[in-house]
Amino acid sequence: MWVTYGLIVIYCKINTEDGNMIYIVGIGPGNRNYITIEALNTVKNSEVVIGSKRALKNFEINGEVIELTKNLKLELYNFLKEHLKTGNKKNVSILSTGDPCFSGLLKTVLDFDFIKKEDIEVISGISSIQYAASKLKISSEDYRILTLHGKEENLKKLLECVKNKEKVIFLPNNIKRELGYLINNGVSKDITATILENLSYDNEKIVTGPICNLINENYSYLLVCVIN
Amino acid sequence: MWVTYGLIVIYCKINTEDGNMIYIVGIGPGNRNYITIEALNTVKNSEVVIGSKRALKNFEINGEVIELTKNLKLELYNFLKEHLKTGNKKNVSILSTGDPCFSGLLKTVLDFDFIKKEDIEVISGISSIQYAASKLKISSEDYRILTLHGKEENLKKLLECVKNKEKVIFLPNNIKRELGYLINNGVSKDITATILENLSYDNEKIVTGPICNLINENYSYLLVCVIN
Ligand SMILES: C[S@@+](CC[C@H](N)C(=O)[O-])C[C@H]1O[C@@H](n2cnc3c(N)ncnc32)[C@H](O)[C@@H]1O
Ligand SMILES: C[S@@+](CC[C@H](N)C(=O)[O-])C[C@H]1O[C@@H](n2cnc3c(N)ncnc32)[C@H](O)[C@@H]1O
Repeated sequence: MWVTYGLIVIYCKINTEDGNMIYIVGIGPGNRNYITIEALNTVKNSEVVIGSKRALKNFEINGEVIELTKNLKLELYNFLKEHLKTGNKKNVSILSTGDPCFSGLLKTVLDFDFIKKEDIEVISGISSIQYAASKLKISSEDYRILTLHGKEENLKKLLECVKNKEKVIFLPNNIKRELGYLINNGVSKDITATILENLSYDNEKIVTGPICNLINENYSYLLVCVIN
Repeated sequence: MWVTYGLIVIYCKINTEDGNMIYIVGIGPGNRNYITIEALNTVKNSEVVIGSKRALKNFEINGEVIELTKNLKLELYNFLKEHLKTGNKKNVSILSTGDPCFSGLLKTVLDFDFIKKEDIEVISGISSIQYAASKLKISSEDYRILTLHGKEENLKKLLECVKNKEKVIFLPNNIKRELGYLINNGVSKDITATILENLSYDNEKIVTGPICNLINENYSYLLVCVIN
């Protein structure tokens, strides 16, 4: 790190040689083909790889595998706490859906009280938002991007955007509840939305229609919603 | 395409078999390791690949290569117009920096008067914004994302955000002009920004400091700017 004229210049080189790095690795929307070479290599060279079953199966893994099951957050917390305490020189990869920096595991891990920024490196991945934009062939800079995961305050922002006729792409938390909220707060039940489900998987499904119809359908939990 | 109860259900399958598809392929921030498998395969299987020298060198190409040189937009326009006129059954890949759906070539190509959405497929890539977030280990859902490329109106939005103390990540058009505009419009010259240059390349450089100092430095044109 150099300090010149009040500017801090940081030359970043990823620490891969000597172990003891925690990588938060973006794995894209789910289909193996949307993983980057960097993610594949990082995981291959890690001594420990942690992730859901769905995430793990996309990778060639040489190290120990830790499958997260139910309480993902707690299991991750316990593992990392123990890992850092023992001080063993191992590279660890944590698999994170989409992009870890968008409504993802980066925030979860940085929220752990014992984790410092220097302990981790992040490998970007294709987020579900981007994949949705690619399917609909829309330019995301023309949209407000919102996540309703762990950001309750964004429900109001969503309403505001739709009322102002701003275009929005959002990650629903509970799509029926959210569409209901819009309708109950003065948005016309006839405005059109698109719901994109299970993106990049064999059962990918994209439905467009008036929100009063969409609200009556059933969905899985892997959803992106677009309102133009 | 099925129509049920006023909902349009679209099952998307990428057309790879019979040729005649134009792929807009996201190539990430520049370093080969940040390309997805899907992008590598699509380019490998294309009969024509179009891109800048910098983009082309990252791919294994079996088809014809068309290097875009100066007037990228015009050269692309002329090639695609001719290509679609002759009606030949070829798959074409157009290489697009970062993510084609963020301030990228998708918009450029859709703006061509003779292009229809059905003519193209998009392959997402890691955008420079995402890569910047990964380096700084910040969560992009906490930031407003703006591009000043071809969106003059966003200069005002940028000012508004900074004045409202909203965090912003933006793609500068002319960083010195834009920082000057902020200062001339009432933003304190002492607020801190980070400028990330040549991301993922060997000459990657990340500088943090007060904007009155940053404004005096010299930069290349590959820049992302973050204001917290
Ligand atoms: C905790 S968030 C993680 C977002 C992730 N970091 C990203 O960049 O896409 C999980 C939500 O992402 C969305 N999501 C992730 N993968 C998806 C997929 N394959 N299809 C549709 N939505 C998806 C869903 O809304 C899901 O509830
Ligand atoms: C026309 S925009 C294309 C953005 C691209 N679609 C994306 O998703 O990153 C070109 C701008 O992207 C930014 N950019 C692209 N690659 C970059 C890199 N490797 N480092 C820093 N900025 C980059 C710069 O601001 C550049 O002027």
